[in-house]
Amino acid sequence: MTPIPNLNIVPFVSVDNMMKLVMRIGIERFLTELEAYIEEDFRRWEMFDKTPRVASHSPNGVIELMPTSDGTLYGFKYVNGHPYNAHTGRQTVTAFGVLADTASGYPMLITEMTILTALRTAATSAMAAKYLAPKGARTMAIIGNGAQSEFQALAFKAVLGIDKLRLYDIDPKATHKCAHNLAAYGFDIVQAKTPEEAVTGAQIVTTVTADKKNATILTDNMVGEGIHINAVGGDCPGKTELHRDIVLRSEIFVEYPPQTWIEGEIQQLPQTHPIHELWKVIAGNETGRSNDRQITLFDSVGFAIEDFSALRYLRDRLQGSGLYEELDLLADPDEPRDLFGMLLRSVKPNTDAA
Amino acid sequence: MTPIPNLNIVPFVSVDNMMKLVMRIGIERFLTELEAYIEEDFRRWEMFDKTPRVASHSPNGVIELMPTSDGTLYGFKYVNGHPYNAHTGRQTVTAFGVLADTASGYPMLITEMTILTALRTAATSAMAAKYLAPKGARTMAIIGNGAQSEFQALAFKAVLGIDKLRLYDIDPKATHKCAHNLAAYGFDIVQAKTPEEAVTGAQIVTTVTADKKNATILTDNMVGEGIHINAVGGDCPGKTELHRDIVLRSEIFVEYPPQTWIEGEIQQLPQTHPIHELWKVIAGNETGRSNDRQITLFDSVGFAIEDFSALRYLRDRLQGSGLYEELDLLADPDEPRDLFGMLLRSVKPNTDAA
Repeated sequence: MTPIPNLNIVPFVSVDNMMKLVMRIGIERFLTELEAYIEEDFRRWEMFDKTPRVASHSPNGVIELMPTSDGTLYGFKYVNGHPYNAHTGRQTVTAFGVLADTASGYPMLITEMTILTALRTAATSAMAAKYLAPKGARTMAIIGNGAQSEFQALAFKAVLGIDKLRLYDIDPKATHKCAHNLAAYGFDIVQAKTPEEAVTGAQIVTTVTADKKNATILTDNMVGEGIHINAVGGDCPGKTELHRDIVLRSEIFVEYPPQTWIEGEIQQLPQTHPIHELWKVIAGNETGRSNDRQITLFDSVGFAIEDFSALRYLRDRLQGSGLYEELDLLADPDEPRDLFGMLLRSVKPNTDAA
Repeated sequence: MTPIPNLNIVPFVSVDNMMKLVMRIGIERFLTELEAYIEEDFRRWEMFDKTPRVASHSPNGVIELMPTSDGTLYGFKYVNGHPYNAHTGRQTVTAFGVLADTASGYPMLITEMTILTALRTAATSAMAAKYLAPKGARTMAIIGNGAQSEFQALAFKAVLGIDKLRLYDIDPKATHKCAHNLAAYGFDIVQAKTPEEAVTGAQIVTTVTADKKNATILTDNMVGEGIHINAVGGDCPGKTELHRDIVLRSEIFVEYPPQTWIEGEIQQLPQTHPIHELWKVIAGNETGRSNDRQITLFDSVGFAIEDFSALRYLRDRLQGSGLYEELDLLADPDEPRDLFGMLLRSVKPNTDAA
């Protein structure tokens, strides 16, 4: 944000401006470009300061802080997870984030991240599938047709060329909503009546349900050879989507193991079970999918580096867009040691020429 | 913030509005009321979710997140510490904070905290001195006359009745600035030429220097019987202000031991050395000062609960003040599962009556 001359000012991206920016760039292009930023950061994974998210649990849900840094930039996201919020008309998950300059410690950007998180989660799934899905995959089943489902569909279209969707949700209204929202995007869409029907003929199965409890969205007999499973919905202790037998049959790829062992599908397995770190595949240190019969599983829980990439992308795309407000966030006395004097002078208007 | 009807809106307190609020309430009254909020939270210390700050270090400084929760409210502060920032006209320490509702996970308030941190640090020092300083103390030495010094002076005046100040700084301009800023507050002020001169006759010695390295602001021979030392400036690994011998002669009181052992004056001591937790004194479980000859030391490093109290106080004082802006921070679709639909509709203006 070098164009901002005042040290006290931090650019702020509201929900409204975020929507304008996404629609101006185009959702599919936004997802494609964002995927490239995430991929760039996964390739230099070892440079990042990593820590499991810092969580504060309460009876209704959790509030988390997810910080990371590449040494030059620092980012963090505030995100909540409150499964019962829909009852009061609120979002289950909302988020905002901050990008800062490590050289000065000054924040450079504050932004809504509810929409940005939906986009980065989908872009990350598509990135994993680029390396793990069977070649030439064009059909994806999406089980769970809530707030994340359309973003998943469009990321897989933009990044992998998926053009056939098979949708299923326990609530047919959610499926209808998803199909309706995606009507203009050129997909061939089947609204399935059962999860079994949804997965039939799909090369990629995305599970993105919102149930808080351990659930069995996919049972063992539903998953055939050669499938890629993109498991997005299981993302906290006690919340899983896949039957343990499927997890055991899969080659498992994760973001940050210390976090995924706690939050992911693999919380069902002993920590001695072999897993792969996705960044190693992307950096070329390990193979992703190695044959056509393998079942690959991306056990996605979301990691701070993906948010960092999203903040970095947003910063670059914001330049010259005008799509931000200026927040008077940082006290900036003329003399750094004179914070108190600034306070005193705030009530005595300066009579000098401004 | 119950008066805010829109779920997507979060009140934001800018630096400008914070200054207006502080000056409208009055600095001394603000400090007195804030001290009462901090004391209330120290009394119910055991209810809080506590964690050492989450730090990201870089060559120039550190960026930290300081979260805590009492189960009903959640607060966190973003704060940086960059000792060389003054060279580029920036503050060494800047901060902002967020208060949230644990029931929904929704943020309730975003605020500048550079000024608020200066106030809460001073209020916390005064609170500790209420329990630890010798009875009837009226004279305080302040060594280090930078950005925090005036706040310390006024908090001790408001809470303890300190009316004589003895100021010292290696830079006489800083001392002059501090004396000048405090001129209208009715103190009897001595601008000392040496630290020895500053401490002469003082019942309370506040050290609040900004040097990053271990420094010996006070040597052993400078500290006589019965003194209360309020050590504020040493607050990170490798940054201390007191000679080890003074620390050894003192009865030591700290905020949160796991953090103070790393950041405070006691980093010079083995962790077997006896220390007291300040909250236990305030809750009445332990004695503070037990005789007139004791040297008491408040080894202050700043803890998340103090910021939480400050956020809580700010929220209460903000009601009806009009001193905030409204940030469109949280995506709020009409149907919580239809985040994507909200995005789509953002470019198709609704033709219905608003």
